[in-house]
Amino acid sequence: MAQSKFEYVRNFELDDSILKNCWIVIRIDGKGFHKFSSAHNFVKPNDNRALDLMNVCARAVMGEFGDIVMAYGESDEFSFVIRRSSSLYSRRSSKLSSCIVSLFTSHYVWKWSQFFDFPLAYPPAFDARCVVYPTDQNLRDYLSWRQADSHINNLYNTCFWALVQKKNLSCKEAEAQLKGTLSDYKNELLFSEFGINYNNEQPRHRKGSFLFRTTEKVPVLDKRTNSTTLKQKKVIQEVHQDIIGDQFWKERSFLLDP
Amino acid sequence: MAQSKFEYVRNFELDDSILKNCWIVIRIDGKGFHKFSSAHNFVKPNDNRALDLMNVCARAVMGEFGDIVMAYGESDEFSFVIRRSSSLYSRRSSKLSSCIVSLFTSHYVWKWSQFFDFPLAYPPAFDARCVVYPTDQNLRDYLSWRQADSHINNLYNTCFWALVQKKNLSCKEAEAQLKGTLSDYKNELLFSEFGINYNNEQPRHRKGSFLFRTTEKVPVLDKRTNSTTLKQKKVIQEVHQDIIGDQFWKERSFLLDP
Amino acid sequence: MAQSKFEYVRNFELDDSILKNCWIVIRIDGKGFHKFSSAHNFVKPNDNRALDLMNVCARAVMGEFGDIVMAYGESDEFSFVIRRSSSLYSRRSSKLSSCIVSLFTSHYVWKWSQFFDFPLAYPPAFDARCVVYPTDQNLRDYLSWRQADSHINNLYNTCFWALVQKKNLSCKEAEAQLKGTLSDYKNELLFSEFGINYNNEQPRHRKGSFLFRTTEKVPVLDKRTNSTTLKQKKVIQEVHQDIIGDQFWKERSFLLDP
Amino acid sequence: MAQSKFEYVRNFELDDSILKNCWIVIRIDGKGFHKFSSAHNFVKPNDNRALDLMNVCARAVMGEFGDIVMAYGESDEFSFVIRRSSSLYSRRSSKLSSCIVSLFTSHYVWKWSQFFDFPLAYPPAFDARCVVYPTDQNLRDYLSWRQADSHINNLYNTCFWALVQKKNLSCKEAEAQLKGTLSDYKNELLFSEFGINYNNEQPRHRKGSFLFRTTEKVPVLDKRTNSTTLKQKKVIQEVHQDIIGDQFWKERSFLLDP
Ligand SMILES: Nc1nc2c(ncn2[C@H]2C[C@H](O)[C@@H](COP(=O)(O)OP(=O)(O)OP(=O)(O)O)O2)c(=O)[nH]1
Ligand SMILES: Nc1nc2c(ncn2[C@H]2C[C@H](O)[C@@H](COP(=O)(O)OP(=O)(O)OP(=O)(O)O)O2)c(=O)[nH]1
Ligand SMILES: Nc1nc2c(ncn2[C@H]2C[C@H](O)[C@@H](COP(=O)(O)OP(=O)(O)OP(=O)(O)O)O2)c(=O)[nH]1
Ligand SMILES: Nc1nc2c(ncn2[C@H]2C[C@H](O)[C@@H](COP(=O)(O)OP(=O)(O)OP(=O)(O)O)O2)c(=O)[nH]1
Ligand SMILES: O=P(O)(O)OP(=O)(O)OP(=O)(O)O
Ligand SMILES: O=P(O)(O)OP(=O)(O)OP(=O)(O)O
Ligand SMILES: O=P(O)(O)OP(=O)(O)OP(=O)(O)O
Ligand SMILES: O=P(O)(O)OP(=O)(O)OP(=O)(O)O
Ligand SMILES: [Mg+2]
Ligand SMILES: [Mg+2]
Ligand SMILES: [Mg+2]
Ligand SMILES: [Mg+2]
Ligand SMILES: [Mg+2]
Ligand SMILES: [Mg+2]
Ligand SMILES: [Mg+2]
Ligand SMILES: [Mg+2]
Ligand SMILES: [Mg+2]
Ligand SMILES: [Mg+2]
Ligand SMILES: [Mg+2]
Ligand SMILES: [Mg+2]
Repeated sequence: MAQSKFEYVRNFELDDSILKNCWIVIRIDGKGFHKFSSAHNFVKPNDNRALDLMNVCARAVMGEFGDIVMAYGESDEFSFVIRRSSSLYSRRSSKLSSCIVSLFTSHYVWKWSQFFDFPLAYPPAFDARCVVYPTDQNLRDYLSWRQADSHINNLYNTCFWALVQKKNLSCKEAEAQLKGTLSDYKNELLFSEFGINYNNEQPRHRKGSFLFRTTEKVPVLDKRTNSTTLKQKKVIQEVHQDIIGDQFWKERSFLLDP
Repeated sequence: MAQSKFEYVRNFELDDSILKNCWIVIRIDGKGFHKFSSAHNFVKPNDNRALDLMNVCARAVMGEFGDIVMAYGESDEFSFVIRRSSSLYSRRSSKLSSCIVSLFTSHYVWKWSQFFDFPLAYPPAFDARCVVYPTDQNLRDYLSWRQADSHINNLYNTCFWALVQKKNLSCKEAEAQLKGTLSDYKNELLFSEFGINYNNEQPRHRKGSFLFRTTEKVPVLDKRTNSTTLKQKKVIQEVHQDIIGDQFWKERSFLLDP
Repeated sequence: MAQSKFEYVRNFELDDSILKNCWIVIRIDGKGFHKFSSAHNFVKPNDNRALDLMNVCARAVMGEFGDIVMAYGESDEFSFVIRRSSSLYSRRSSKLSSCIVSLFTSHYVWKWSQFFDFPLAYPPAFDARCVVYPTDQNLRDYLSWRQADSHINNLYNTCFWALVQKKNLSCKEAEAQLKGTLSDYKNELLFSEFGINYNNEQPRHRKGSFLFRTTEKVPVLDKRTNSTTLKQKKVIQEVHQDIIGDQFWKERSFLLDP
Repeated sequence: MAQSKFEYVRNFELDDSILKNCWIVIRIDGKGFHKFSSAHNFVKPNDNRALDLMNVCARAVMGEFGDIVMAYGESDEFSFVIRRSSSLYSRRSSKLSSCIVSLFTSHYVWKWSQFFDFPLAYPPAFDARCVVYPTDQNLRDYLSWRQADSHINNLYNTCFWALVQKKNLSCKEAEAQLKGTLSDYKNELLFSEFGINYNNEQPRHRKGSFLFRTTEKVPVLDKRTNSTTLKQKKVIQEVHQDIIGDQFWKERSFLLDP
């Protein structure tokens, strides 16, 4: 059969293995979610149904790939952190990115109806990229970068939509009023104009969602003795808190352990 | 704000741009579709519902990305061919792969119920890779490789399932009987034992599906004159025929034109 | 022995193989040759001793690596063209670049005294890079790019040093006079002011040096019969002519043949 | 001028920047030094003239590139370690490799006659590669790997040449006697048969050469007062000792400091 004659083309595949002993981050981000969120009437600035859906998809991805030790999500994006010593797919970059983004997308569409009571107007897509960090500090700085970015965007969006929705400004006017202003101004604006203490806003909106593997004591019923005992169980925990400072990491030193 | 302090981590992203003036092939392939096809009772060896779904997803991908000039699909895989001069996503490999595989997956789940009258048991995923071919001949050889591969697998599977389903052999027995046999033997086996002329099997099973952009004359009604005229319209055509020989390409020389 | 414990570090080497079936160009360029040429009193704008030395080193490199089919040199640079089907060093980019640049440098220092009657003031170095071209046209355009660049620089330099050396302008004044001027102006300046017809300048200065493998009929003495016959011999030929137009390539179609 | 038309080819150069915040090792190795050492009658198994020449070239390279903080050499190879935060040549891999290997080669040829009283028979070449290490431990393991490799080779070669030169064995016989033997056997062989205590062999042969930047107190004469004072001066120090154990690094913690 002619196959042998053509099989040489397989050798045009280039090796895209990732440097060993580095943290691997796969970040996915919704394609054109400006339009997607609007086409599906997402609540502004944050739609908890959409965030819940993102998180449940991220959990599914972590459930499938045991080498993902933590993940951070906000808005239409999620970053999956693969442990430095992983040899998943021989660390082939495109395999890692594509399998994660495809599985995430698949769950997103599949589980949509669990969170929204109307159907998808059109199927969404996500891009994915692979970024590599050599040190624990670099990885923490990466996560801090995403959380800081989330904070900036969310504070801005909270102001923007308050001005638009509660003070009936046009989008242009709201934009003009916020242009170039600092955090202090925005906090003050929310408080004085709308009675909103930004720090009391929902933590998941202010801090994003951090998922990580840990163990939890759960009560298990022993049918023979009819008594319950506490057993360690592996779980994926979700928190919405500061991951920029040292405290979070000190309390969970196992996260960065090899 | 702390952002500036962390933003340096963005520079750890490495450039993955693809060499210019080369054909770019993005091949996606179902993850664990051995299990998936069995969990969803796919007809053996070929389930037309599954193939229809694959093709409709491929069309959606081509609809979104105009730089994909052709695509070839068989079994759980699809290869998308991006024209050599494309600057889509600045030819960034991971952007191209991830957006294509994510969109394909999204359509697969979204459109599942158009082709199957029972729901998905679990959400499927696809991997994706990017392969680059410098010459037209290399590209044709790539497509020939996939079609030859498809042929070999399909001829084998046709025999295998005939032996299992019609002669009640166990899978092991069928495997043993086919081991090491050539095409001639398999053709003969199908004919003498099952009255099957392999060449009369459905073309889409024997040849896979080739999609390409072309124009078609379609009748258009002019409301004023109430007469119909033929107009050129851009369409994505689907064929199931030999793409290994020269004839196919001679008749469609525009496909490889720059 | 402790070796095994450490040998894992070898796996941190990443594969840098070059895409198959593409032309590979290794371009080397003198490091800081502005200073080097001045420290060794190179004739301005072109020192034939320096050019001869460059060419003889390039020949030595071609003598060592049979897969280099042609090379183009000018000023302090040389581009070596490796045939598309080469599997030299498994097409590993760093092996190809480093071996070529190292051998070139080695010959440069070793043969210096054959061309200059004073010793090196300090040892020169060259950088090297690897660039890949998928089509013959791309390769020709690459070579045209280098020759066009050489022409522009040489025309400028010829004017510049004429103004400085023959009209006693300062470097600043010469620069100011030439700034923004076109080729026509420079040709005219050379002719009217210095009686120089640029087209009569030495071809090697105007066109650079193109080296390529070919065969030549050479007379061979047969000792038995004491008669000479012409035999084909492999040689590396050097020409200084236009390689931008089609004619050069039509006459030597074997150069781009696979 | 036609240049613009061709300049597009420059964009075929692909970015080869190295991941940030990693140790960069450039290892060079003599091409065919089996033949080269024999053509120049190198003393067996170690020729101090050759080793001196290697080391002086490595010093010259370190003198040129301040970001090389240490280097390890043995036999025909040298590894240059560039500090993790370096932005030399924007961390472009081919620039780093090629400039280092070219400069090394240039010095090798240029300084040959300072170490050998006969001329080079032919010009030597070195290959170069770039390897990246994310952690200090990985870098130390790399250096340990090279030193352990050097030890194994040197112990073997010492035995081999003793058998050949002092007991008149043929090369084949010596090879046969040593095949599969462990270190203990070789140490014992050297002692009992040749009265050689391997630990008393020259440290540079047993341990290779480690070069690193440090400061030294040097006496400086003050001409006015005619008194000497000690001043800190930057130097490149050379040692021949164990770099596998912790002690060496504890005493020079600055080497791995950022
Ligand atoms: N209303 C609303 N919008 C959201 C929510 N989450 C995300 N979005 C929107 C806000 C932004 O327009 C968009 C995310 O910003 P991106 O920078 O990712 O832009 P986009 O996805 O449009 O473009 P891209 O394809 O990623 O370049 O998604 C939400 O919970 N509610
Ligand atoms: N019954 C049936 N099976 C199919 C059909 N299309 C694909 N499959 C199954 C047959 C193969 O077991 C599988 C495709 O082979 P692959 O080499 O891609 O293996 P699989 O996806 O299991 O593993 P992978 O994750 O790609 O390495 O999908 C179909 O139409 N009917
Ligand atoms: N006088 C004289 N100078 C020459 C000759 N050949 C080359 N050069 C000088 C002129 C330029 O200043 C220099 C080559 O230009 P480059 O752009 O390569 O600059 P340079 O090598 O100084 O810096 P680089 O390290 O390559 O970035 O070498 C020659 O034959 N005569
Ligand atoms: N006699 C003698 N030989 C030496 C000395 N230093 C290095 N050599 C020789 C011994 C080895 O045959 C050779 C180094 O081994 P390599 O593995 O680098 O092999 P070689 O350079 O021949 O091949 P390569 O091009 O690197 O693959 O150089 C020395 O000081 N004295
Ligand atoms: O998936 P296979 O087994 O058909 O073969 P492959 O696709 O070349 O292997 P991989 O998916 O690991 O690249
Ligand atoms: O997508 P943006 O605009 O937030 O910025 P980016 O993700 O860095 O850009 P790209 O997706 O093109 O890499
Ligand atoms: O050169 P060798 O044989 O010592 O081994 P290597 O250096 O790992 O091989 P290569 O030079 O081909 O990378
Ligand atoms: O060296 P230049 O300035 O002629 O330009 P370049 O060679 O493209 O720059 P680099 O050597 O930094 O790649
Ligand atoms: Mg983006
Ligand atoms: Mg987005
Ligand atoms: Mg986003
Ligand atoms: Mg596969
Ligand atoms: Mg599959
Ligand atoms: Mg498959
Ligand atoms: Mg340069
Ligand atoms: Mg230069
Ligand atoms: Mg130059
Ligand atoms: Mg080697
Ligand atoms: Mg060697
Ligand atoms: Mg060696």
